Amino acid sequence: MALIVQKFGGTSVADKECLLRVAKIITDTYKNGNNVVVVVSAQGDTTNKLIEKSKEINKNPSKRELDVLLSAGEQISSSLLSMMIESLGFPVISLTGWQAGFRTDSNYTTARIKKIHPERLKKELDARKIIIVAGFQGLNRYDDITTFGRGGSDTTAVALAVELKADLCQIYTDVTGVFTTDPKKIGTAVKLDEISYEEMLELASLGAKVLHSRSVELAQKYNINVEVLSSKVCEKGTVVKEVKNMEKMIVKGVSIIDYIAKISIIGIKDTPGIEFKIFSFLSQKKINVDIILQTKELDGTKNIHMTVPLEESEDAYKIIKENLSLFDARDLTMNNQVSKLSIVGSGMQSNPGVASKMFESLFEHGIGIEMISTSEIKISVLINRKDGLKSLKVVHDAFIQ
Amino acid sequence: MALIVQKFGGTSVADKECLLRVAKIITDTYKNGNNVVVVVSAQGDTTNKLIEKSKEINKNPSKRELDVLLSAGEQISSSLLSMMIESLGFPVISLTGWQAGFRTDSNYTTARIKKIHPERLKKELDARKIIIVAGFQGLNRYDDITTFGRGGSDTTAVALAVELKADLCQIYTDVTGVFTTDPKKIGTAVKLDEISYEEMLELASLGAKVLHSRSVELAQKYNINVEVLSSKVCEKGTVVKEVKNMEKMIVKGVSIIDYIAKISIIGIKDTPGIEFKIFSFLSQKKINVDIILQTKELDGTKNIHMTVPLEESEDAYKIIKENLSLFDARDLTMNNQVSKLSIVGSGMQSNPGVASKMFESLFEHGIGIEMISTSEIKISVLINRKDGLKSLKVVHDAFIQ
Repeated sequence: MALIVQKFGGTSVADKECLLRVAKIITDTYKNGNNVVVVVSAQGDTTNKLIEKSKEINKNPSKRELDVLLSAGEQISSSLLSMMIESLGFPVISLTGWQAGFRTDSNYTTARIKKIHPERLKKELDARKIIIVAGFQGLNRYDDITTFGRGGSDTTAVALAVELKADLCQIYTDVTGVFTTDPKKIGTAVKLDEISYEEMLELASLGAKVLHSRSVELAQKYNINVEVLSSKVCEKGTVVKEVKNMEKMIVKGVSIIDYIAKISIIGIKDTPGIEFKIFSFLSQKKINVDIILQTKELDGTKNIHMTVPLEESEDAYKIIKENLSLFDARDLTMNNQVSKLSIVGSGMQSNPGVASKMFESLFEHGIGIEMISTSEIKISVLINRKDGLKSLKVVHDAFIQ
Repeated sequence: MALIVQKFGGTSVADKECLLRVAKIITDTYKNGNNVVVVVSAQGDTTNKLIEKSKEINKNPSKRELDVLLSAGEQISSSLLSMMIESLGFPVISLTGWQAGFRTDSNYTTARIKKIHPERLKKELDARKIIIVAGFQGLNRYDDITTFGRGGSDTTAVALAVELKADLCQIYTDVTGVFTTDPKKIGTAVKLDEISYEEMLELASLGAKVLHSRSVELAQKYNINVEVLSSKVCEKGTVVKEVKNMEKMIVKGVSIIDYIAKISIIGIKDTPGIEFKIFSFLSQKKINVDIILQTKELDGTKNIHMTVPLEESEDAYKIIKENLSLFDARDLTMNNQVSKLSIVGSGMQSNPGVASKMFESLFEHGIGIEMISTSEIKISVLINRKDGLKSLKVVHDAFIQ
């Protein structure tokens, strides 16, 4: 008897029809002789609505109370899904995060799982019950409710798969798998049969909203196979796993993040600790710096280029501007008309042709490159925002047939 | 330092404005140097909406899952009220039923409190925090969520007052106190300063929606003073307590239940256990029989008259009709055009003038009496439904000046 963990996101359980569809997936899996543990998110946009409601009352509520509020969303959907499965005549039980044994640290709204006490889960599985676990929540050492933040239900599912030594963890979502690029933008996008953890992590950080990074990191650490598939279309999805055969397709995905700004500090006098000073100012203001590039010029000064999300760019620019004299810099510029195009694939670094092929395809179509940054399995370039979709298409076509 | 338990119903916390009003009542009490433990119901008609939602999915969901669902309503309102109190700058913490230590039996949807573990409550009170407890919920011995049924938040409040030896338990609602009759129907209704537990119990069972019977029974058992008052109008309410001075006003309340049916089984042959047979049929069908009157006729047969809620009358009539031969009865009649008018007041039985005064006032206004039933502190009569409001008025005027 296999044990399968299945996770269903908010859109998969949004209404009665969705709940019925999901209940059938679950009970089919159960009927095939498997034990099934299900993780469920709050219905539709429940979480956003609850946050809205709280903001009306208190613009800055304590995170502890926010977690009490938000966790109720998953409690509701877990009981509704259980009722639907009951109506199909299967044995089922819903468990809140704490009933399922989730113990976390005390970082309300972004708590990390410390331990799962599996006794209750095992008891219900021994009784051959389908278990519906309210996702993204647990209890801290004070017996207070905590939540895991966005994407926390994915993490709940993978953590359960680890703890219960599940044979498979399936993440049901509103897409049929992981694609080489966004199929809504590029019609020739191809669904991948499998992808490595590292590649998935790079894609996640590039804006592919398929799997939350934390859940991928956890799956990688414990070597759990995670299948991403659709709750609405019945077909095999993409399995995220330890992939040995890396040669076949080097570039696994092409992605774009549209709203980026590039800030450049030019002619910084080279004094020790100058980078620390700059970025500590930015981190104090909670600005998310993405790419950082530093070059040293012939005159001994340094140039630092960084990218930040467009919506944080004004704040970032202002804080650097105000402190520019401290950094002893000559000039400060910002370009807030750029997008970041990236290709991701393991083994890329040992295939020197990949980068040149990317640059060639952009050049051929008259798209200029503002900045380049590379890592083990990723090449990112900044381009003009107006060229975004075109660049995504030509680079995708160059690599994916 | 006094300890005050305050309970706020669904209409008192329905929206942002209500929450602010309630938060001010609570923080004013706190500022006056009191410790405050608050019990809160789900906002507005949340509970009904959740039940509706569940019925769409499963007409007959398990009660266990229903309790998981419903308890979320109070969890949400407790966190929102806490956030509102935070915004006023007071130390506050919300606790779910189980966090507040409520342990119950396993009768889902109608659970009874077995014990309150007060450690967490005491810890938060010692830290001078305002505590907001999610009403009407606890945990059973399997660590599953249970709810207490309608009016369960009143019971939560009184139980907390008992456990914490509170100085006062205030039940805030949408009326300013307990009235001699429904002030919406009869303009001359008078608010009572105080009322005994027994009188309150009779009024509650007669349809006065002010306090849930279970909470009054609990308050009586532990001699807790319960004040009923309005969250919207700032004035003294009605205190439910052990009242010694019973002579002043004999009749404390006049109430009417409009939709009643009277069923009469006529000429039953007198065999032992016949009453048991009849009422066990009815109880199997979950029919709520209210008044039962039995008379023995000169020919040795018995007549049994009973009242049932109008909406259950057809079922009740049908089940008796089908089994009439078993009861060996001559005839079966039903009058589903009646209402039940009652007067309540301690010491009524030792004042023989009360009953005759009631009958006289009805007679004077040409209102016929279909049936009479009396107890220690109550006289109920069945009258034609069309005379309902008129009879309420004339009887109220006869007793209350």
